[in-house]
Amino acid sequence: MPVSDRLPTLTVSEAGPPERGDAARNRALLLQAARRLVDQRGAEAVTTDDIAAAAGVGKGTLFRRFGSRAGLMVVLLDEDEKAQQQAILFGPPPLGPGAPPLQRLLAYGRERLKFVDTHHALLSDVNRDPQMRFNAPMTLHHSHIRLLLESAGTSGDLDTQATALLDLLDADYVRHELTDRGRSLADLGDAWDTVARKLCGT
Amino acid sequence: MPVSDRLPTLTVSEAGPPERGDAARNRALLLQAARRLVDQRGAEAVTTDDIAAAAGVGKGTLFRRFGSRAGLMVVLLDEDEKAQQQAILFGPPPLGPGAPPLQRLLAYGRERLKFVDTHHALLSDVNRDPQMRFNAPMTLHHSHIRLLLESAGTSGDLDTQATALLDLLDADYVRHELTDRGRSLADLGDAWDTVARKLCGT
Repeated sequence: MPVSDRLPTLTVSEAGPPERGDAARNRALLLQAARRLVDQRGAEAVTTDDIAAAAGVGKGTLFRRFGSRAGLMVVLLDEDEKAQQQAILFGPPPLGPGAPPLQRLLAYGRERLKFVDTHHALLSDVNRDPQMRFNAPMTLHHSHIRLLLESAGTSGDLDTQATALLDLLDADYVRHELTDRGRSLADLGDAWDTVARKLCGT
Repeated sequence: MPVSDRLPTLTVSEAGPPERGDAARNRALLLQAARRLVDQRGAEAVTTDDIAAAAGVGKGTLFRRFGSRAGLMVVLLDEDEKAQQQAILFGPPPLGPGAPPLQRLLAYGRERLKFVDTHHALLSDVNRDPQMRFNAPMTLHHSHIRLLLESAGTSGDLDTQATALLDLLDADYVRHELTDRGRSLADLGDAWDTVARKLCGT
């Protein structure tokens, strides 16, 4: 799964049964509270004080469970990445299996644009690490695009064409287009659609 | 010009005529020496001590003229960017004017791949600054690709298609493909060619 290499090691299993239950409960409360606050205000506006207060636990508990604010945010992102991957790999068509490859590819582009817009702050953070950029996190997305290009009978170098499509879903690029250039997610979706269709030769 | 916003302010004009001549001469000697060493060893292996020694000046002179090692390297990159821009805008075809737009686009892709490979270290540095990534430095390249796509009669959103092509010339991506994935500049040139032709609809 994309970002799990960056997850802080949780010490839940070191504690005896009662503490273990507390730790798991606090972890769940903190994640729920963080998700609610991020949805309401955006990730940038949410502090560890806010999250701990909303979860009804001490700030020290947050740091024990997640190591840092970034550690907690990475877990949130990872949960959402997993949910999206489930939808891509096993969910209903056209995003999931069952639709023709080009239709799946176009559905993927629009879904992923929404995802990177919603998760911009965290993805941008992960992106800035050059190790992350070309390794585990994006491999699944690259493979998915490449496989759909291949299934659609795309000619030429598939790795490069998958990279071109994936780069247009980069969180910083999408944010730049939306905020600095006044484009909409629908515009970007249409443009991605055009590139994908041309590469597939339709 | 791409990186001139990052140039340190040179204090040459503050000095009287004789110092001014010395400053200009030292600046030229340092740039020559740096270029020679970078060509021989690659940017990563060249220190300010090496450059000052090869130029026959003190290291303090290097810092007075360029502010820092990075400042000197940015001037070197900027000189090469200007030379490439001259070739693109005014040089002989197929890179320069006179060839059909698709031919110019394909020539541009191969030339730029060579350039980003040679200048990887510096471009990578500049790239990591999100401000630089979407602003002045890459605007000229984006505009050039966009104009050639337009002249070639490309349908659909030209900004996005120019971005897709430009992203495949990203210094970190190119380096990753060459060093970690065993591809050659010729491979990457062929792949870029394929994407460019498909976007142009040929």
